[in-house]
Amino acid sequence: MANKETGFVQNITPQSEDFSRWYTDVIKMTDLVDYSDVKGCMVIKPYGYGIWELIQHEMDARFKATGHKNAYFPLFIPESLLQKEADHVEGFAPEVAWVTHGGNEPLAERLAVRPTSETIICSMYSKWVQSYRDLPILYNQWCNVVRWEKSTRPFLRTSEFLWQEGHTAHETAEEAQAETEKMLEVYREFAYNVLAIPVITGQKSEKEKFAGAMHTYTMEAMMLDGKALQMGTSHNLGTHFSKVYDIQYLSREGQLEYVHQTSWGTSTRMIGGLIMVHGDERGLKLPPKVAPIQVIIIPVAAHKEGVLDKANALLAELRAAGIRADIDTREQSPGWKFNEWEMKGVPIRLEVGPRDIEQNQVVLVRRDNFEKNFYSMDGLADTIKELLDKVHEGMLASAMKFRDEKTTSAEDFESFKTAINGGNFVKGLWCGERECEDGIKEETGATTRCMPFGESAPESGICVHCGKPAKRVMIFAKAY
Amino acid sequence: MANKETGFVQNITPQSEDFSRWYTDVIKMTDLVDYSDVKGCMVIKPYGYGIWELIQHEMDARFKATGHKNAYFPLFIPESLLQKEADHVEGFAPEVAWVTHGGNEPLAERLAVRPTSETIICSMYSKWVQSYRDLPILYNQWCNVVRWEKSTRPFLRTSEFLWQEGHTAHETAEEAQAETEKMLEVYREFAYNVLAIPVITGQKSEKEKFAGAMHTYTMEAMMLDGKALQMGTSHNLGTHFSKVYDIQYLSREGQLEYVHQTSWGTSTRMIGGLIMVHGDERGLKLPPKVAPIQVIIIPVAAHKEGVLDKANALLAELRAAGIRADIDTREQSPGWKFNEWEMKGVPIRLEVGPRDIEQNQVVLVRRDNFEKNFYSMDGLADTIKELLDKVHEGMLASAMKFRDEKTTSAEDFESFKTAINGGNFVKGLWCGERECEDGIKEETGATTRCMPFGESAPESGICVHCGKPAKRVMIFAKAY
Repeated sequence: MANKETGFVQNITPQSEDFSRWYTDVIKMTDLVDYSDVKGCMVIKPYGYGIWELIQHEMDARFKATGHKNAYFPLFIPESLLQKEADHVEGFAPEVAWVTHGGNEPLAERLAVRPTSETIICSMYSKWVQSYRDLPILYNQWCNVVRWEKSTRPFLRTSEFLWQEGHTAHETAEEAQAETEKMLEVYREFAYNVLAIPVITGQKSEKEKFAGAMHTYTMEAMMLDGKALQMGTSHNLGTHFSKVYDIQYLSREGQLEYVHQTSWGTSTRMIGGLIMVHGDERGLKLPPKVAPIQVIIIPVAAHKEGVLDKANALLAELRAAGIRADIDTREQSPGWKFNEWEMKGVPIRLEVGPRDIEQNQVVLVRRDNFEKNFYSMDGLADTIKELLDKVHEGMLASAMKFRDEKTTSAEDFESFKTAINGGNFVKGLWCGERECEDGIKEETGATTRCMPFGESAPESGICVHCGKPAKRVMIFAKAY
Repeated sequence: MANKETGFVQNITPQSEDFSRWYTDVIKMTDLVDYSDVKGCMVIKPYGYGIWELIQHEMDARFKATGHKNAYFPLFIPESLLQKEADHVEGFAPEVAWVTHGGNEPLAERLAVRPTSETIICSMYSKWVQSYRDLPILYNQWCNVVRWEKSTRPFLRTSEFLWQEGHTAHETAEEAQAETEKMLEVYREFAYNVLAIPVITGQKSEKEKFAGAMHTYTMEAMMLDGKALQMGTSHNLGTHFSKVYDIQYLSREGQLEYVHQTSWGTSTRMIGGLIMVHGDERGLKLPPKVAPIQVIIIPVAAHKEGVLDKANALLAELRAAGIRADIDTREQSPGWKFNEWEMKGVPIRLEVGPRDIEQNQVVLVRRDNFEKNFYSMDGLADTIKELLDKVHEGMLASAMKFRDEKTTSAEDFESFKTAINGGNFVKGLWCGERECEDGIKEETGATTRCMPFGESAPESGICVHCGKPAKRVMIFAKAY
């Protein structure tokens, strides 16, 4: 079992006492982020940015494997350009930061700092697309965006954040729909296999869809307080934007047609998600594939002859095998270090002392379940790679168990309210009307998260709120 | 020799006729960038962004190998924070884009869109640094910055550009100076070994140094029109910023001391540099290490049985060996494709047709010198790796020869003027006075580029402009 002495844990508010303060304590104490002098903007410190770099690395490989290329579009969007698509501007205008002066001179036209890039990208696509030969366009960009938020929390909702946004254009509606679904599936697979987060995927309601989209699909994750976090969305834009921004192509049949478009995005918000899906009273618990340090080596009785040499040799061996290993040779006691690295969520702790060296073994402790075992130094890199996979699987299984236990079905509004107040995802039948959606939110604080794929309302089903015939299966939850 | 038919070259203005138009033609025709609806802001298209990704990959590995970590600081800087360091604000204020409204409300204080991040980063370092144990801080960030420029050119000078900025803090002046020089050396080595650009390194004059720095060091490259391009700078900030932003630490001796700082940056401007150092009348010539496509495979008589299969098998083989290879199976003629890929600067063209297959060989053509040879298909990946190294060496040697031929010494002002007007770098002795520096610029258009490392003025030397005793050896040139 884990070492339980020392004071780190005392400085972290227990999850059960105040989940929100637990989150804030953890991100500050583990050096993921800091608050800046600019309201609502965070500084992502190296330990937090290291997670983001690994996320980018994993995602970018998936985007490229599915035929996408990266590009970069301007940070600024002229006001007139932003305003062309009515729903879109209505959705984003309240959150836009406006540049009004360049150097010492007022600008002729205000510039929006991009809240998302559909408009500027569409204006370029309209230049680039002439013929079906120019299609599909499959571009992505990694960049910062700004949405002026009144109430902010690091990673979850900040005025500036980092993200990727894919923007594609296609000949047919079918292709655009296939792309929208394909990229949501890329996100889902990434969430499961990299972040160890068992997201639920499905379609958003009309109310919750992206401003300007035809359909929005989402992956939703359950946090340890039972609330939902939207972790990524994929939009079928139809021809809403191409008609407004005039993106036409000469078809194979010689006709001028509007392109069918998609956009899809994920952001640094996912880091907030993995903290709240996996963390515990001791602090962070990082999924191995995005842990900046996967193995921390702690020499025990480091002053004894040969211990540091051996520890460093193991470090070199693990690094050579492509494992992100580090060593802690600071002056503090091993017990203090055990606690600090547990707090920082490092998946595996490796202890090595004089007796271990004598016996050609090391002690490995898993962060996910505190299992502690001796392993031979021979073939250690392979042992650790297997163990990292097991940690990943263990974390995913644990999150899945929690999600399933906290997802309930409700057939009437009383049980619905009880389940929502108990911090559950509630699966219920819904009439599909905006009025009911608004009513549920008002009465319970829950919003529609998604209509999960592969589930349809039974013919005789009735809406959990109004009792009228149900059209869809919907997952409701309180959300971040 | 290269195929000379077809029309691409006709669409590129010859370098000798108008170098500036040659540049603009090349970047547009090769799909590196496009102009956007926002004045002075460029869109970096996938082919251009691919170069940037490779630059980032190579540089980032070097930063990490020298102990630096990436972080991310806010895009916005409150006006009051920017204004604390007087020289700094004087240098940057005229170029700042100002955000004045968030959502629909005016902000209490204007926010600068970062032109560079010393000020916001210093404000954080002042929170993070307490003791010598917190030092050194060795952070870097990859981000966008904005400098409102009146006259812009893609890559060379744009209102928004992408860059990296390193920001470090140290206990002693010696350490800060060592870091400043170390990072300039990282840049120099990168320029030589990745971009194949033989930069000259040295120190900037007082006039040309970074606003707020104690000393600025630079790498300067000679473009094919004889003009200089500043490709990267490294600044020793001394305690200028730490005194203003109050970054103090408790020293090993128990004294409160100000940290010594550095900052260093390179940007997408380097892409402009490599175009203008290596390009020719046919278009781009990309250094192999940053070429998004290193080898383009062109099937000849592709309709003949077995040709496409073989070409695709070779593609798979090269890719498996880590070579960035691609295949052109479009309907155009081989000759048309040869020209297009030459224009796009792909280092090696691989031709394969029925007779080649019969003889188990391929044709390889180098973009740098148009050398064309037959090579066995056996061990082709190794052959190509060697050849890519040779292309790199050839490009570097050629750029070095040009640079050396166009660098002259001048001992009097008449020969100085002649040399400058002839498009040379001129090495001359200089009194060190701002007045002379200004005079030279006014009379010839040349600016001081750098005082090259390892060269000092002879005791009896006199200034090339005023004839007074010389203090420094200076390289003068017209510059971008």
